[in-house]
Amino acid sequence: MQKVNPAEKLALIREHWSPKIAGDLNGQQVKLVKFQGEFVWHHHDAEDEMFFVLRGRFRMDYRDQQGRECAIELGEGEFLIVPRGVEHRPVAEREVHVMLLEPAGTLNTGNVRGAMTVETPERV
Amino acid sequence: MQKVNPAEKLALIREHWSPKIAGDLNGQQVKLVKFQGEFVWHHHDAEDEMFFVLRGRFRMDYRDQQGRECAIELGEGEFLIVPRGVEHRPVAEREVHVMLLEPAGTLNTGNVRGAMTVETPERV
Repeated sequence: MQKVNPAEKLALIREHWSPKIAGDLNGQQVKLVKFQGEFVWHHHDAEDEMFFVLRGRFRMDYRDQQGRECAIELGEGEFLIVPRGVEHRPVAEREVHVMLLEPAGTLNTGNVRGAMTVETPERV
Repeated sequence: MQKVNPAEKLALIREHWSPKIAGDLNGQQVKLVKFQGEFVWHHHDAEDEMFFVLRGRFRMDYRDQQGRECAIELGEGEFLIVPRGVEHRPVAEREVHVMLLEPAGTLNTGNVRGAMTVETPERV
């Protein structure tokens, strides 16, 4: 049993948009990631996703049930749970450090495969 | 879909050792809690538990596989996952603000029912 210091782990991560696994519990994974720029629009068919801001801030764009584009600004120490099925994309003007919580095996780009997809996240 | 500001929620919580539900995802719950003093030794038969320190610091006492008493000091921004079956008790000299992640329905005192048990946590 070992504690995890996310700030120390994040100092080892260089790439943006590449979540690294930092913990496992109850079939879920804790991942650490740096965002900068615009991610791709996507959704997850069967996974809810939690975004906790460790450092910095970002905007979560999403589409509501009527298909309208909406946005939520997230600051340091705040979190957002994006339920399964909701189209979303994180956008960060400046680099932001985020802790994710989602089921093991969740693909970062959900239903969309492309240049930003990380098929097999590493551990950190 | 609404973001959560844990610091604002914690400002509404007065009691120690009484986790409040702040989010739901994938059958898990995010809970916010203030610790101060010594909790009771307990374990969870079927639930892994994550402790993320939002403010302050605390010590997690636990028993290793040989039954020896061990301890891990957790500081602000650090987390610990206590696997199912591991005997543990948080101890906080001063008040600490913690975010928990565990399966919905997890009892705070696990296998031990007593004065510190919260049967039905409220939402915050």
